[in-house]
Amino acid sequence: MKAQLACIPCIMNQAFRAAKAATKNKKLIREVLNKVGEEVKYIDLKKCTPPEAAIPIYQIVTDVTGVEDPYKNAKREHIKEALTLYPLMIEKVEQSKNPLKEAVKIATIGNAIDLGSRFDKIDITKEFERIENSLFYLDEFDAFEEKIEKEKEILYLADNAGETVFDRPLIELLAKRNKKIYYAVKEKPIINDTTRLDAELSGIKEEIISTGSGVAGTILNYCSKEFVNFFAKATFIIAKGQGNYESLSSKRAPIFFLFKAKCKPIAMETGFRVGTMLLIKSKYFR
Amino acid sequence: MKAQLACIPCIMNQAFRAAKAATKNKKLIREVLNKVGEEVKYIDLKKCTPPEAAIPIYQIVTDVTGVEDPYKNAKREHIKEALTLYPLMIEKVEQSKNPLKEAVKIATIGNAIDLGSRFDKIDITKEFERIENSLFYLDEFDAFEEKIEKEKEILYLADNAGETVFDRPLIELLAKRNKKIYYAVKEKPIINDTTRLDAELSGIKEEIISTGSGVAGTILNYCSKEFVNFFAKATFIIAKGQGNYESLSSKRAPIFFLFKAKCKPIAMETGFRVGTMLLIKSKYFR
Repeated sequence: MKAQLACIPCIMNQAFRAAKAATKNKKLIREVLNKVGEEVKYIDLKKCTPPEAAIPIYQIVTDVTGVEDPYKNAKREHIKEALTLYPLMIEKVEQSKNPLKEAVKIATIGNAIDLGSRFDKIDITKEFERIENSLFYLDEFDAFEEKIEKEKEILYLADNAGETVFDRPLIELLAKRNKKIYYAVKEKPIINDTTRLDAELSGIKEEIISTGSGVAGTILNYCSKEFVNFFAKATFIIAKGQGNYESLSSKRAPIFFLFKAKCKPIAMETGFRVGTMLLIKSKYFR
Repeated sequence: MKAQLACIPCIMNQAFRAAKAATKNKKLIREVLNKVGEEVKYIDLKKCTPPEAAIPIYQIVTDVTGVEDPYKNAKREHIKEALTLYPLMIEKVEQSKNPLKEAVKIATIGNAIDLGSRFDKIDITKEFERIENSLFYLDEFDAFEEKIEKEKEILYLADNAGETVFDRPLIELLAKRNKKIYYAVKEKPIINDTTRLDAELSGIKEEIISTGSGVAGTILNYCSKEFVNFFAKATFIIAKGQGNYESLSSKRAPIFFLFKAKCKPIAMETGFRVGTMLLIKSKYFR
């Protein structure tokens, strides 16, 4: 999907959050904001998706603060916190009448729980259960299940560190059903996106591959040739998170998107209310 | 209070909201965002309060869109909507064991209800009752009551149109207790702040005076000499809304601030959690 006017103030908010994560030095944070302010006019909304619009902004954060991985500690914390919930997730899947559907739901909750956006300590189990009882759109689950039955290999595009743990019930269930999973992560740190190490720390036992990219979402122009070829040949892709939807929704590829709609532009694009947890089949799914 | 780093992304959000309220023309909205982006580096956080930091931003919105009063229709709507609740407010005050405290509470709810920030139609009565049961800090009410007993004249600094209706139970009760109220409004439209006409449409029967200002908050440098003199002589001031706290909290004036803490910088400044409804006595209250 194309970036929207609303992406511009959002980019300023993102820059502020990333700068604060990178440094406590107020002068440097201010410098980031000033430079991002200057950059605004160069963002060509017609030519880019929202994650592409944000690329120069995260570069500014790194250039000004000198910090390559502002969310490093936060990511480790989130993984640790999410791992405490893992036994509950497995219990829920095992006790469900439809374990695959429950695992899909949990993977989506992982996207919704957004460990990165909290100010205060919360009870993560309560939060999990609160989200579990909120708005899901899973009408395309039957198509998902039907398609997946026929597949041997699944390309799984990971999103945030921490959310990774919530992916495990789904990919472990698929592995048990003899599917080969390729769990695709970022080559370099960007925001709180998952890297190989994050995936490993989350207990991912399936094959981890790199997109070759160090930008948010899955922007094929920024991925390695190897990954782009792999992506082109994939017959079933699960893409986690809004950034992956934003960057891939217009690509001719067999994708199921799993994410929470977190802002107004995505709500307009998908036709679902902000806050809805979505399983959406790409319109190009063959 | 001084403006904070967090005010900068907030200013970009405010500009976006105001630009959208002023025009549907995407090119103009984009021009506003670009110009605000350029302006960011000139904001001197050390020298201004948050509403002062936003002054050039609202000027950009007006200059680019040519619209002097982007919230005109919204304000009328909010007043109309708030007026439907007026009988309930009066009923609550009349049935309360402590009518003055109830009226103070209602005036604060008016600040919290924030008719301007909603996407969807809500049930305003339910919203009123939801807020009524949320977090209030009214520990300074006894001091408020004690001080007000001794006063004959009260300067009441209004905030938003719509909120004005929620002020009525309090100012009408004070009028019944033989206090003379001066209800101070903006000279020119700024965001959804109250002007004389808005106050009249809200049914304010007390004396309406103008601050002489067309900027948010009560920034004395932007007020008329007449108002500044009046303000200096006031012995009891009630200031509604966060913008008035931000612009007046460091002034040596006998003020009780009534507002909901709506962002992190104000939470840090006051020591209360975001979302708390506050009655705070100025530290300079003599």
